[in-house]
Amino acid sequence: MICEIITIGDELLIGQVVDTNSAWMAARLNEIGVKVKQITSVSDDISHIKQALDAARERADVLLLTGGLGPTRDDLTKETLCQYFDSELKEDPKIVAGLTAFFKSRGRELTEINRKQAEIPVKCEPIYNYHGTAPGMWFEEKGKVFVSMPGVPYEMKAMMDDAVIPKLSAAYKLPKVFHYTIITTGVGESFLAELISDWEDQLPEFIKLAYLPSIAMVKLRLSCYGADPEKEHRVMVEVDNVKLLIDKYILGYNEDTPESIIGEILLERKETLAIAESCTGGYLSHLITSMPGSSAFYVGSTVSYANEVKSQILGVDPEVIKNEGAVSETVAKAMAKGVREKLSTTWAISTTGIAGPGGGTPDKPVGTVWIGLAGPGVSVAQKFNFGHNRLRNIQATSLFAFKLLRNQILGINEE
Amino acid sequence: MICEIITIGDELLIGQVVDTNSAWMAARLNEIGVKVKQITSVSDDISHIKQALDAARERADVLLLTGGLGPTRDDLTKETLCQYFDSELKEDPKIVAGLTAFFKSRGRELTEINRKQAEIPVKCEPIYNYHGTAPGMWFEEKGKVFVSMPGVPYEMKAMMDDAVIPKLSAAYKLPKVFHYTIITTGVGESFLAELISDWEDQLPEFIKLAYLPSIAMVKLRLSCYGADPEKEHRVMVEVDNVKLLIDKYILGYNEDTPESIIGEILLERKETLAIAESCTGGYLSHLITSMPGSSAFYVGSTVSYANEVKSQILGVDPEVIKNEGAVSETVAKAMAKGVREKLSTTWAISTTGIAGPGGGTPDKPVGTVWIGLAGPGVSVAQKFNFGHNRLRNIQATSLFAFKLLRNQILGINEE
Repeated sequence: MICEIITIGDELLIGQVVDTNSAWMAARLNEIGVKVKQITSVSDDISHIKQALDAARERADVLLLTGGLGPTRDDLTKETLCQYFDSELKEDPKIVAGLTAFFKSRGRELTEINRKQAEIPVKCEPIYNYHGTAPGMWFEEKGKVFVSMPGVPYEMKAMMDDAVIPKLSAAYKLPKVFHYTIITTGVGESFLAELISDWEDQLPEFIKLAYLPSIAMVKLRLSCYGADPEKEHRVMVEVDNVKLLIDKYILGYNEDTPESIIGEILLERKETLAIAESCTGGYLSHLITSMPGSSAFYVGSTVSYANEVKSQILGVDPEVIKNEGAVSETVAKAMAKGVREKLSTTWAISTTGIAGPGGGTPDKPVGTVWIGLAGPGVSVAQKFNFGHNRLRNIQATSLFAFKLLRNQILGINEE
Repeated sequence: MICEIITIGDELLIGQVVDTNSAWMAARLNEIGVKVKQITSVSDDISHIKQALDAARERADVLLLTGGLGPTRDDLTKETLCQYFDSELKEDPKIVAGLTAFFKSRGRELTEINRKQAEIPVKCEPIYNYHGTAPGMWFEEKGKVFVSMPGVPYEMKAMMDDAVIPKLSAAYKLPKVFHYTIITTGVGESFLAELISDWEDQLPEFIKLAYLPSIAMVKLRLSCYGADPEKEHRVMVEVDNVKLLIDKYILGYNEDTPESIIGEILLERKETLAIAESCTGGYLSHLITSMPGSSAFYVGSTVSYANEVKSQILGVDPEVIKNEGAVSETVAKAMAKGVREKLSTTWAISTTGIAGPGGGTPDKPVGTVWIGLAGPGVSVAQKFNFGHNRLRNIQATSLFAFKLLRNQILGINEE
């Protein structure tokens, strides 16, 4: 089954909002074996939306739309769908009741403008919205399915999980897709490609290989289509084969993130972590605490932008900062040691560097970063230079800090 | 002039990667008066890419493509463009020299696979890539422009800024677009719409109004097209008029973010900030430190996930935590007071709450958050409930923490 996603809204086309809905929907569809052929973003314009519907139904069996369902006048999706399916609006009593309860729980009356949201085209089946005010709509015409959902991500996600995915799974016998992703770091895309060139040559036709580079990482994704245990087995054999070639660059697999890998290791070992951040400014802590359950192994952090904080809270010797500079091996080590002792944890990592764009010197150019680590009987630091982009520096530093921590805990030798 | 963006890559269609390039490009194009009509994401498939090119050139004057230019075999954009424009590949000596230097600076030889990246279609003009290995390509055919760029965001961004935007600006006499955005918080989209309904009714035809809801915020965007000072003036008059109706909900304007507003205020007043985070886990600090120059007003933070850290570093009385709970008014205030004293800053904000999904009680359900503030002669706290989604909680808490801080500094009364 082929699906297309159409996201609607002028805000997407002037770049005011990044379309994160499509990737989320595509990933969920992929899991149940629905292939997304194309993603299209169009403006809040009736004729443009109709054009996109006409083009997409030629290629796909299922069309998922998001956006343009708000109560305000710039939202035109419902009107467009009425015209497109030659249908009329009718108030749905269950939606009125839901809206009344929704506003009551917020201490408000149901207003005229919101009551209009309970009107839906008679030709569609409503999808109830338990997290917002705009209902979704499910249309079927000539064997094709059209689903319209709000653009607010958590409203759309709830509708997908509660209604759209179960309905699609029940209605179609779906072929499975099997992906396996290997996450590498510390090796460029082209060098990686050369390392595994012979292996890639002998891959069978049915295994598709993709290289997905991002900041300081390259993911290798192997895919095969169709629920065939033999094919899936072959994918895993090929994964084992390629692992032997690139072992030292492998960070994890599939949905692993640097922080989830750390979380799993620490939970299993019942060990704890503290962080002393300078140039990463809280980002390492944010990544860790974005994971539910992280309080089981993560104790706390300091973010020390000012040098006095490094001395006062972490106990870094002000003389050392003065002599060697805040961005130095000694200070990185002292920060990690200081926060580990202060918060009594098994492990601690630290970052100190020049994130940029200002603050560089000939000796320590922008992008210079020291990552420190302290653990049972261990105190190490590594130096990097990640270049001039501030956010790229912060992200790359975080990745390599987690990598250093993993390797130290597991005793993996970094060459 | 009408533009369309085509992003190429299977990773977009299986949801492994969010397409952030399109929004960035659209925003840059918008600034120079180029209207983006549609954004289309297609797979690494020659016929599908050609189909998308055919469809887009019917609607647009300029087509910008990203992705599919890597050195590996799954990247098919260059081959597709060769076929599409009936052109042949030829090695470009300047690109070879650039690639050789690029690899030399990384201590590596130019490999065969990378040397192939110096081959470009004879019918295109190359766009040199100073941040990576894949060159961009500029084609013109029958009055239409086709530009192909790498999908790696910082490589694409540099090409856009250094080559594509200047070339487009020079080649076309572009009509200006004028946008003005008002950022509101603490008011729902539909309630906002009712508040300004009469004002919206009397807006002239040439001003387009859009409502852009996101987590805990609604943006109102007024737009007009065409470089007309009178029209722009009218937009600003309307902005002034609507401000009177929704003044207390306004957080900022245009590119303002909650953290940039804080930064500007503190810089101007030469005052400083410290942060004590619990439930936001470093996110507030990350937002502040993502801004270049934040070290001028931001001193540091603590992230205290474990209660002992709240006591040990911030000096919160363990008895109070025991009796009132870590998520309480007293603890929120004590955390802000503690970090302010410890780091000797003008202002401090704190967060303590139950981010979820676990940890709730009937008394303090998931989503309960206390935000604390300490300043010269001030100690306050506010209670919120942001519901069950962990990341939404973290984001909403951050927004309201910055809002509380702004209002306290500026003496704005929150009803």
